[in-house]
Amino acid sequence: MGPIENDEDGGSSFKQIAIVGCGLIGQAWATVFLRAGAEVRLFDVVEGAAEQAAAQIKDRLQELHRFSLIPDDVLRDAPGRIAVAHTLKEAVADAEYVQENGPENLEIKAALTRDILSFSAPDTPVGSSTSGIPASSYAEHLSGRERCLVAHPINPPHLVPLVEVVPSVWTDPQVTQAVETLLRTVGQVPILLRKEIDGFVVNRLQGALLREAFNLLDAGVASREAIDLAVSRGLGLRWSLMGPFETIHLNAPGGVADYVERFGRMYAEMFADERGASPWTDVVASGLGADLARHTPAEGIPAAQKQRDEALMTLLAGQS
Amino acid sequence: MGPIENDEDGGSSFKQIAIVGCGLIGQAWATVFLRAGAEVRLFDVVEGAAEQAAAQIKDRLQELHRFSLIPDDVLRDAPGRIAVAHTLKEAVADAEYVQENGPENLEIKAALTRDILSFSAPDTPVGSSTSGIPASSYAEHLSGRERCLVAHPINPPHLVPLVEVVPSVWTDPQVTQAVETLLRTVGQVPILLRKEIDGFVVNRLQGALLREAFNLLDAGVASREAIDLAVSRGLGLRWSLMGPFETIHLNAPGGVADYVERFGRMYAEMFADERGASPWTDVVASGLGADLARHTPAEGIPAAQKQRDEALMTLLAGQS
Repeated sequence: MGPIENDEDGGSSFKQIAIVGCGLIGQAWATVFLRAGAEVRLFDVVEGAAEQAAAQIKDRLQELHRFSLIPDDVLRDAPGRIAVAHTLKEAVADAEYVQENGPENLEIKAALTRDILSFSAPDTPVGSSTSGIPASSYAEHLSGRERCLVAHPINPPHLVPLVEVVPSVWTDPQVTQAVETLLRTVGQVPILLRKEIDGFVVNRLQGALLREAFNLLDAGVASREAIDLAVSRGLGLRWSLMGPFETIHLNAPGGVADYVERFGRMYAEMFADERGASPWTDVVASGLGADLARHTPAEGIPAAQKQRDEALMTLLAGQS
Repeated sequence: MGPIENDEDGGSSFKQIAIVGCGLIGQAWATVFLRAGAEVRLFDVVEGAAEQAAAQIKDRLQELHRFSLIPDDVLRDAPGRIAVAHTLKEAVADAEYVQENGPENLEIKAALTRDILSFSAPDTPVGSSTSGIPASSYAEHLSGRERCLVAHPINPPHLVPLVEVVPSVWTDPQVTQAVETLLRTVGQVPILLRKEIDGFVVNRLQGALLREAFNLLDAGVASREAIDLAVSRGLGLRWSLMGPFETIHLNAPGGVADYVERFGRMYAEMFADERGASPWTDVVASGLGADLARHTPAEGIPAAQKQRDEALMTLLAGQS
């Protein structure tokens, strides 16, 4: 792997990043690397998609600048560091890292990764944005599988820094470490998973909370809006500052052990009669779809996403 | 119930609030009502506790002012609106609302509430901060139980606005509505629970996420720190802006129904082999207590709480 660590004068010396798959996630990843000073090559199998993505990325950079999240010089020179590649080979040939954002389909991802491995240098790590397919599945039969791992972001990655780094059983530990270092260097917050598990950590935590949210809605305990407020004006305010363990550690005089002694039984009893079935699929029947469509109709979703991103930028600007 | 709604010139006309039980939660509640212009009477069975609380409350007001969360005139006149009552009767006799913050013990809460009901005006609502005991339990045998309900805050309530309003089966709906209106008037965000359920909504959502966090730690999937970061630098950033349903509604082009169609099966499979037992009580064995004690030793918890509150104030100031 190339020199992606910080060099001695504190600048970052890695140069060339390939973004394969230029949808929303690919665009946000490109923004992350550009913001940190890298050169980015975009490739998408759909003709014209990489060019469109380049325009979108420039818009994102403008927005970041408007919220004082990137300085003037980065806004000025970043567009010159975007290149559109017309073949996969051109995109990855001299890349020091490849971020793959292909479809969530095992066969497609395996074939795409095979091609990336064959066209890239023999020491280039290849990270996948997949939220559902472990590298041990899609890279199993590939020559070069020791360079493959999952680097799963949270949407949108240029505003939410956490990245789940999930090596397969074959991934070279040096590759894993190099990717963690690269991600830290560009300002993300990588967390290492020691085991591949369905949903990784982020979607398991989100899934557990969502499952209970659906159960409460299904049981008529509170309205959709009330449950959303319980998080957005309650739990989520604390959780934007500290994680769940840190939160409970501060909520009992003697720390977490004290907390568990005080409240552990209450929590255990709460879920003692946990229903096996999850009412996820009853979403339409329960009226949730209609409720949220009144709140934000499908055609309003892009504007609401933009509002969310602006609020995230305000939050980030306030925290920095 | 007294005139707690806004009067015609937009000012709030309720005056007299009684705070019964002056620990951290009682102090924060007093701060909420003082900030909104009310007069507050403090009472605690422990001699001297109400006087100490009055001093703490003044410190909290200073802090809010330092973060531009209250204007100069409120900082100036709020201390003059704090009174220390020497008997419960004196505290609640002419209160328009009583917020009770007694111990989490059914017998104590029932006896305390009985006394509050007997000393207060026959139309004064009595809200309890309890996180675990429904009003249908502690008020069952009390004359005046139609005035009792739970008003459960999130710690610390002067910085985290959400309040769970949980009427018992006997609570007069007008009382419930009056308390919701009062809470809104003073700047909190009340949510109404339609059924009493163990843990209400907030602790059930928190408990579901914690349970999965403990499971992941127990299974060795990721470190304590990694799991905390997954929330504090990931999920929690979004959840401080919007609730869980709103979040997924924006994460698929067609909204929530589309999201459930895309990801519902993934989530359902994630928890298909849900273990019955929760590893909550294995907390010490798993090393979590030691890990968090290294992160923040018990004696460092007050300072860490202060830091958390300052970060919350920065967050709130940035959002307003």
